[in-house]
Amino acid sequence: MAAIIDGRAIAATLAADTAARVAALPAAPGLAVVLVGHDPASEVYVARKLVAAKAAGIRSIEHRLPADTEQAALLALIAALNADAGVHGILVQLPLPPQIDAGAVLDAIAPEKDVDGFHPVNVGRLSTGIGGLVPCTPLGCMKLLDTVIEDYRGLDVVVIGKSNIVGKPVAMRLLEREATVTVTHIATQGLPAICARADIVVAAAGSPRLVRGHWIKAGAVVIDVGITRVTGEDGRTRLVGDVAFDEVQHARAVTPVPGGVGPMTIACLLQNTVRAAEMTHGRA
Amino acid sequence: MAAIIDGRAIAATLAADTAARVAALPAAPGLAVVLVGHDPASEVYVARKLVAAKAAGIRSIEHRLPADTEQAALLALIAALNADAGVHGILVQLPLPPQIDAGAVLDAIAPEKDVDGFHPVNVGRLSTGIGGLVPCTPLGCMKLLDTVIEDYRGLDVVVIGKSNIVGKPVAMRLLEREATVTVTHIATQGLPAICARADIVVAAAGSPRLVRGHWIKAGAVVIDVGITRVTGEDGRTRLVGDVAFDEVQHARAVTPVPGGVGPMTIACLLQNTVRAAEMTHGRA
Repeated sequence: MAAIIDGRAIAATLAADTAARVAALPAAPGLAVVLVGHDPASEVYVARKLVAAKAAGIRSIEHRLPADTEQAALLALIAALNADAGVHGILVQLPLPPQIDAGAVLDAIAPEKDVDGFHPVNVGRLSTGIGGLVPCTPLGCMKLLDTVIEDYRGLDVVVIGKSNIVGKPVAMRLLEREATVTVTHIATQGLPAICARADIVVAAAGSPRLVRGHWIKAGAVVIDVGITRVTGEDGRTRLVGDVAFDEVQHARAVTPVPGGVGPMTIACLLQNTVRAAEMTHGRA
Repeated sequence: MAAIIDGRAIAATLAADTAARVAALPAAPGLAVVLVGHDPASEVYVARKLVAAKAAGIRSIEHRLPADTEQAALLALIAALNADAGVHGILVQLPLPPQIDAGAVLDAIAPEKDVDGFHPVNVGRLSTGIGGLVPCTPLGCMKLLDTVIEDYRGLDVVVIGKSNIVGKPVAMRLLEREATVTVTHIATQGLPAICARADIVVAAAGSPRLVRGHWIKAGAVVIDVGITRVTGEDGRTRLVGDVAFDEVQHARAVTPVPGGVGPMTIACLLQNTVRAAEMTHGRA
């Protein structure tokens, strides 16, 4: 039986660490959360982030803007938040409405307050391995892996999916740890055989039950980033990962969906926020 | 017999393209070349760059600083060059003397004048595939590959070496073209077998004749970035690549050393310079 990597428990430990670091600061860190419009999924995510921030002792500052907000108005808000010494982290919930260029908005966030790790400077620092704020989902994947892998040196890792928010950054983190990393995606030929060679598979394709049992080598470690809501034959919906969880019990360890990577993302956001605040105080 | 990818000829074509683009601009682009100290290899590289720039119609502005230059003085020079509208590209020749933090200097260059493509913003843009200036050696590798590969989609590529100046950026470019990319390095296990699966091998390990004939699949394309000066049994020195060139004649195409990637690097620097100048004029 594969060990279950319990994302909820690990996230709780991380949250406790964050709360302790918050308590050690001279003042509560401030996290500005910007939500434009009323996308229902975004509302849910933002609400969860706000609850978690409060629990960690992080002061969150909500900015809810109407769906027809002009880009210039949003950029003006970002500029004000960049200049506000009480704001240590800035989170702009994506997606943004079509009249707004999301890239321009993310570029406008001060890199040292970019707790999502999406600013080009942070992407570049991640790539060159010189620190910076790391995007929350790949950071969460690494923290889960770290609970079962001590030394990545020379391990064969296959990352499924080359997105900017998961696949590429997790590949960069793994390279930094001296794993041999293969990044695969929709155009990859012979993906099952490629996966079957891997010591670690990170599945971030967003394709339910893409990764089948025979794709996974006995003793491999499987991180399932995918989370898709599907409707079963009984008409009820449930959340399904990219991995056929029941088929990979010959793995050494595997993350469940839900309860694996998911809980880590918000925990990592808060850890990034306290880290941003610590950097401010370290500099002051 | 493998086709020889003639870097000298392809670089000459690129240089002619650059010269034509220079001639189409309202004024000659300015390339500031900063050399600190008297490293002999750096002197040679800078001299070559200056000659090539002149041939392309690019106005180069040399700044030679003593080896004991303080970091603050170099940063002040960078700030002045950033502000100088006649300077479109800034090249700081590496390595820098030990009293200077190279990272801080590269970070100080305005990203739009960073013709070496080393600024974190350009590294980040390369990673996310949204343009920016690409480092010269990986850009040269891609231009060589483009002469023999039309569609990278689904091709298996192995990159040997995970440096920030070659391995990682070339991997990012290849992912952008939808190849399946494996990045290998000194800690990789079973490298010969990994290479033997590849449709394209990019060798950037700096290890003479590392890649032997049986590492290369028949019909593969081999790009040899390595260039090391070795002393033969006859006591004479010669330049040797990472690939045992004589053993890979079953490849579809291969770059020689010298005369492969080497000539492309300066040609790409000049192309980046004219591109930086074109962006300025496009904005003006």
